[in-house]
Amino acid sequence: MSRPIKILIIGNGFGGVYALKNLHKFFHNDKKIELALVGEKNYFLFTPLLHEVATGGINPGNIIEPIRKVLGCCLDKFYLGKAEIINFDSHTVQVENALISYDYLVLAPGAETNFYNIPGAEEYSFPLKSIADAIKIKNRCIMVMERASHVENRIKRKNMLRFVVVGGGPTGVELAAELEELIKETFSSYYPEEIMEDTSIVLIQKSPELVPAFGEKIRKKSLEILRKKGIEVMLTRTVKEVGLSYVVINENIKIFTETVIWVAGVKPAELKFNQPAKQSSDGRLVVNEYLQLENHKEVFAIGDAAAFRDANKNIFLPALAQVAEKEAKAVAKNIQLLINNKIPEKFLYRNSGNLMSLGQWMAVGEIFNFTFSGHTTWWFWRTVYLFKLISWRKKVRVAADWTMNLFSPRDISQL
Amino acid sequence: MSRPIKILIIGNGFGGVYALKNLHKFFHNDKKIELALVGEKNYFLFTPLLHEVATGGINPGNIIEPIRKVLGCCLDKFYLGKAEIINFDSHTVQVENALISYDYLVLAPGAETNFYNIPGAEEYSFPLKSIADAIKIKNRCIMVMERASHVENRIKRKNMLRFVVVGGGPTGVELAAELEELIKETFSSYYPEEIMEDTSIVLIQKSPELVPAFGEKIRKKSLEILRKKGIEVMLTRTVKEVGLSYVVINENIKIFTETVIWVAGVKPAELKFNQPAKQSSDGRLVVNEYLQLENHKEVFAIGDAAAFRDANKNIFLPALAQVAEKEAKAVAKNIQLLINNKIPEKFLYRNSGNLMSLGQWMAVGEIFNFTFSGHTTWWFWRTVYLFKLISWRKKVRVAADWTMNLFSPRDISQL
Repeated sequence: MSRPIKILIIGNGFGGVYALKNLHKFFHNDKKIELALVGEKNYFLFTPLLHEVATGGINPGNIIEPIRKVLGCCLDKFYLGKAEIINFDSHTVQVENALISYDYLVLAPGAETNFYNIPGAEEYSFPLKSIADAIKIKNRCIMVMERASHVENRIKRKNMLRFVVVGGGPTGVELAAELEELIKETFSSYYPEEIMEDTSIVLIQKSPELVPAFGEKIRKKSLEILRKKGIEVMLTRTVKEVGLSYVVINENIKIFTETVIWVAGVKPAELKFNQPAKQSSDGRLVVNEYLQLENHKEVFAIGDAAAFRDANKNIFLPALAQVAEKEAKAVAKNIQLLINNKIPEKFLYRNSGNLMSLGQWMAVGEIFNFTFSGHTTWWFWRTVYLFKLISWRKKVRVAADWTMNLFSPRDISQL
Repeated sequence: MSRPIKILIIGNGFGGVYALKNLHKFFHNDKKIELALVGEKNYFLFTPLLHEVATGGINPGNIIEPIRKVLGCCLDKFYLGKAEIINFDSHTVQVENALISYDYLVLAPGAETNFYNIPGAEEYSFPLKSIADAIKIKNRCIMVMERASHVENRIKRKNMLRFVVVGGGPTGVELAAELEELIKETFSSYYPEEIMEDTSIVLIQKSPELVPAFGEKIRKKSLEILRKKGIEVMLTRTVKEVGLSYVVINENIKIFTETVIWVAGVKPAELKFNQPAKQSSDGRLVVNEYLQLENHKEVFAIGDAAAFRDANKNIFLPALAQVAEKEAKAVAKNIQLLINNKIPEKFLYRNSGNLMSLGQWMAVGEIFNFTFSGHTTWWFWRTVYLFKLISWRKKVRVAADWTMNLFSPRDISQL
């Protein structure tokens, strides 16, 4: 028997894991194919629910799924570690002590928080990209509440109890809404009224509207809902500096706060190659219409680190889980076609709609230019998310967390 | 109205939280009494189930309960922080920036891991006293499995896959049993057989028997069960040194391992006073028959940091959750009696039996010299533990975790 064809995936986020899932559909039990994955964590993290972990709505363990469990049947090798260097000539990837060879390579390293070199941002603010980040945010909120509850000076207390979210994209909006409920509803049953009165939430957004990538109605609706919740939404404001106890925005306005959550944007995770690869201005790997690197047809890039030009709109597709998932599916198909000596298919992106939760009982969505909001949307949002979580075990647990939250307050233990 | 009587509790473990619970029974809604608690964490940790978090059987969040939730109704003040200095003369305790005064003081700071100054023990081994400790142990086990799965050399692989537990008390025995199930049952569904064959567990115990504080039958039974599980139990062996990839035991025998879990003993958490307090040889605060410090009758000490002489056996009571709980109850009663100008009661300890789990479906117990083991005991063990967990919300969650474990493998995500 000839040696198996080696397909290697770099990354264990939406792109990598969905690539694996789709390859499994084509090659399950196929002894001629060897599937391997490199990941820096041993689990898949369902990032769209991270903000619920940060605000105590979901147990951290319930939005992750061990990689080996996701598709143990078809994952021949899993490497826990970082892809240190990718060699296009020898078709190998170095991961710690292992040199892994490939016939087809799928690059899906994802993205990391972009602090845009704003002074103090990385040092003093809290990003939200990992489970550890989410736990830190929750712990900080609790610590600030505890400390402030022994402070008599009201001005000082108000400054301590101001929570600032930087970034008005979907993550920032969802997080601000959940944060409001954590503070105003959950904390209020543990802390006296005079403390609760001094809490406030500020959302800083650089554009004139929230969630600018979404449709007009959803943009207006989310602003309306957040303001109704008492969140101070500051539009067309950019952060100039972050300090230990403040942020500075345009016109040198200083906002005092001890909790700055930074969800203002992402940048592609860096990969090293033995020869330069073509990148977009924001550092993503430029791919052709088949999602291949133009000079290395056996190498594909997908997800947040890939720049695929949407033919209809002539823009690069945004960094969304949905995009990564669909690109992963297309890449798996194309690899299967190439292996069978067939012609790959051009990738065509179709948005399947956007959904955003705004706390308990409220969500907004848009599908095919149709916008909706309210309780039904909220129920729909939960169901969609629940079914995207991979194992039934996790589905049951998240459902249990959510059900509990309806009847009893969130968990405010500092982890 | 005269100023309220201030009762201050130091510590949020079994002693502190049960003192609060019992004081609440006496003084609920009593405006003349002010209850305050100082804790280094904002939650109560149910330590007897920590080993199940370390081995992936229970979600970390499910064995903790926020202090403010335990008894919000009667906890007038909660201070998150460490008691830095206790002043017996001015009746005050310094906690970070706050100087807290008391009329009655309950010292329940608990215990920390004792490494007995053994070279390398603190540096290279994993203790099991906190949620963070438990998560680290689980992460290490997973990391070692992942790394070893790419190692071809069998001797090297066997050394990597040897897990060493130091300490054959109840924690060590329960942990070793659970660890065996995590490795041999859960991991075996994710890793190939040749890797699994190279895993092994070693339990090192300095005494000639396991759990020497328990009755004879339970000591024999637990040894028998662990050995049947394939765990190598080494008796009358002491650890001389711990290194990055080995432990050295008596006769200079070197055991290669990359995972040493240290559950060999505890020492009382240190407290600072403005004048010396009488201590036992192992550093615990000596209390009289009313659980008071002899020279400061308004100060009580309970739990792992207190030395109460058991009149029947003429020994100090052991560091057990059960002891702390009963002392807490007695202290609450005595404070209530003193406040009402009555004579305090002498504390009398009655052991209500010992229960120990040895993995799924197996437990051993002893109550009134009656020893039992098997499935019924195991069911009983779970029920007892479940009912000791404070809120119904947490009870439901632990029950859900346990039920899930019966039907699907444990969660092996590295947190």
